[in-house]
Amino acid sequence: THIALLPGDGIGPEIMAPAVQLLEHFVPGVSTEEHLFGGASIDAHGTALTDEVLAGCQQADAVLLAAVGGPKWDTTNPDDPRPEQGLLGLRKALGLFANLRPVRPLPALYDASPLKRERIEGTDLLVVRELTGGIYFGEKTRTDTDASDLCHYTTAEVDRIARVAFEAAKLRRNKVSSVDKANVMETSRQWRQVVHAVHAADFAGVELEDVLVDNAAMQLVSRPSDFDVIVTENLFGDILSDEAAMITGSIGMLPSASLGNPDGPGLFEPVHGSAPDIAGTGAANPLAMFLSLAMLLRHGLSLEAEAGALETAVDAALDGGLRTKDLGGSAGTAEATAAVLAHL
Amino acid sequence: THIALLPGDGIGPEIMAPAVQLLEHFVPGVSTEEHLFGGASIDAHGTALTDEVLAGCQQADAVLLAAVGGPKWDTTNPDDPRPEQGLLGLRKALGLFANLRPVRPLPALYDASPLKRERIEGTDLLVVRELTGGIYFGEKTRTDTDASDLCHYTTAEVDRIARVAFEAAKLRRNKVSSVDKANVMETSRQWRQVVHAVHAADFAGVELEDVLVDNAAMQLVSRPSDFDVIVTENLFGDILSDEAAMITGSIGMLPSASLGNPDGPGLFEPVHGSAPDIAGTGAANPLAMFLSLAMLLRHGLSLEAEAGALETAVDAALDGGLRTKDLGGSAGTAEATAAVLAHL
Ligand SMILES: CC(C)[C@H](C(=O)O)[C@@H](O)C(=O)O
Ligand SMILES: CC(C)[C@H](C(=O)O)[C@@H](O)C(=O)O
Repeated sequence: THIALLPGDGIGPEIMAPAVQLLEHFVPGVSTEEHLFGGASIDAHGTALTDEVLAGCQQADAVLLAAVGGPKWDTTNPDDPRPEQGLLGLRKALGLFANLRPVRPLPALYDASPLKRERIEGTDLLVVRELTGGIYFGEKTRTDTDASDLCHYTTAEVDRIARVAFEAAKLRRNKVSSVDKANVMETSRQWRQVVHAVHAADFAGVELEDVLVDNAAMQLVSRPSDFDVIVTENLFGDILSDEAAMITGSIGMLPSASLGNPDGPGLFEPVHGSAPDIAGTGAANPLAMFLSLAMLLRHGLSLEAEAGALETAVDAALDGGLRTKDLGGSAGTAEATAAVLAHL
Repeated sequence: THIALLPGDGIGPEIMAPAVQLLEHFVPGVSTEEHLFGGASIDAHGTALTDEVLAGCQQADAVLLAAVGGPKWDTTNPDDPRPEQGLLGLRKALGLFANLRPVRPLPALYDASPLKRERIEGTDLLVVRELTGGIYFGEKTRTDTDASDLCHYTTAEVDRIARVAFEAAKLRRNKVSSVDKANVMETSRQWRQVVHAVHAADFAGVELEDVLVDNAAMQLVSRPSDFDVIVTENLFGDILSDEAAMITGSIGMLPSASLGNPDGPGLFEPVHGSAPDIAGTGAANPLAMFLSLAMLLRHGLSLEAEAGALETAVDAALDGGLRTKDLGGSAGTAEATAAVLAHL
C-alpha cells in the first residue's frame, strides 16, 4: 500500500504529520511519499503541480492532502501561477468528479454551533459536489475592459454525478435534494432535466426534490436536519458545503473525499483551508484531517473497520472534553492528537 | 406622483393590496396603475413582460413589485416563457444595476432567528448586489448534449457598483467586504482589481477586505455582526443575500431597492418569493412588502420622514407582539396590516 502525501501550505504540514502517525498505526508497513504542492511547489518550481508530483499521485493507492494557498500567492494577475491551480489540476487529471462532504454535528459540539440547538439536532447530511466541470474549468478570457468565465456541462457529466448521489441516498435516508438555478441558468435547466431522467430510469424509489440555490442557502440555516443528500454543480457545491460546514460550529471538523476514477486513487482532504494566520503556532485543529484519513481508509483502501475505529476515537476524544481553539477551547494540534491516540 | 404596481404571482396580489393602502396614506393623491407581470402576464399574453408594461414602468416615478413565479410556470424547456424573464428584463431595461438589501434583525425577533442570540446581536449589514451583469445576462447555449452560461463583466460595470458600495459605507460603519472567487474565476480577479483601484483612487478612508465567496457563506453564519457593507456580483449576491436574510429568522421581513438610472424609476420589492404554497390563504407576511414601500418612499420619492414613520410603525407592531406565521405566531396578512396601521 502506497499513499501520496501533499502537506501543501500554511497549517498543512502541521496537520499532516500527526495524520501520518495515525496512518502508520492503522496500516503497519504502509509506504508514503511526501510531495511539494500548491504554494510550496510554486516557490520551488514556479508551478503548483509538477508532472513528477502528478505522476507520483497517479501511482499511489490514495492521495492525502492537507491544504493549499495563502496571501503570499494571492494575485489578480491572470499570468501568475496560483496554488489553487494545483488542486484544480490534480482533481481534473485524476478524474475526481465526485466530491463527498459529510456534515454531521456531534452532540458534544452542539454548543459550538452558531445555530440554536433545536435547529441542528439530528443534522446528518452529505453534500455531493460535482468537481471537474462547470465554471471552474470552462474557458476564461481577459482584456483591459472585459473578463469572462464559461460555465459548461455535458449531460454525461450530470448523469454520472446524479448516480453517485442517488446511490449514496440509498445507503442513507433515501432522499436527494438537487440544487440548481434553473430559473436563470441554462446549465441548471439541463442539470434538472438529467437528474430527473436518471431518477425516473433507475432510482424512482428515492425521494427527489429540486431546490433553487438561493433557497438552499436559506434552508441550510433554517432547517439543516431536513436534508439527507444534497447534489449540486461545482461552484454551488463549493459555497453550500462551506456554509453547511459552519453549522457544525467548526469547519475544522469536516473531511472530504474526491472520487471518480475506479482505476485511480481518490483524494482525501479536510474542507478547511490553509489558515495562514495560525500557521506555525501549533494551534491548528487536526480533527478534519484525521476524519479525512478515515475516509481514505474506508473509500481508498476499503479498511472499513479501521475507518470506523478512527472516527470513534475522534468522537470519544470530543466526548471526553477535547476542545481546540476553534471550538472555544485551548487544545493545540499536539494535545488533540494525543487525545485521539489515547482512545485508539 | 405616479407609481407603477406589479402584483405578480402567488401571494403577490395579497401583499400588494395593503401596501397600496399604506402608499395612499403617505402620499395623498398618488396615482397608481397596476400591470400584469411574471406568470400572470405569461397566462394573458404569452410573455412575462410586455412592451406596454415596460413603457408603463418607464413612465412611473417608481415601481413597486410584489413577487413572481410558481410551479405552474416551472419548465426545463429553454423555449418556454418563464416569469423570471420579466424580472430580469425589467431590471436590465430600467438600468437597475445596484440592488440594495439591508439585513437588520430586530431585537423583538431574535427569538425567531435560527442563530443563537449572541451571534446575531448587533447585526446590521447591507448587501450591495450587482444586478444587470454576470451569468444572469451572458450568452446561453444548449444542445442535446451540452449546455453553457457565460459570466461576463466589464470594468465599467464593476467600477460603478463598487462606488455605490463605498458611498453606502461612508453613511454607515465605513467598511466594505468585497466578495469574489478570485482563486478560480477570471471575472473575480478583474472584480478584485477594479474594486481596489476605485478604493485607492476615491475611497481610501473606507476599510476594505476581500472575502472568498465560500468563506463569506460561512462567516455570514458565524459572525454576521462583523459585516457592514457586502458588495458582490449578481449570482453571489443572490445566494448570499438570501442566506443573510435567513439569519433574521424570516425572509418575510426583508425589503430591497434596485437603483441605477438617475433619470428613471427605481424598483422596490421584498426579497422573498411568491410563496405559491400559501397563496390565497391570507397567511402571507406583508412586512417585507411594507418595508419595500418604505425604501420606495425614501429612495424613489425622497420622502425620508414618511419612510422613517413606516419603518417605525413596523418595528412598533413587532414590539407590540405582532407575529405572523413565519415568525412562529398566528397573525395573517390582515392582522399584520391592522397592527402596522394602528401605529401610524
Ligand atoms: C481552493 C479552492 C480552489 C477550492 C475550491 O473552490 O474548490 C476550495 O475552496 C475547496 O472547496 O476545495
Ligand atoms: C427570481 C430570480 C430570478 C431572482 C434572482 O435570482 O435574481 C430572485 O431570486 C431574486 O433574488 O430577486
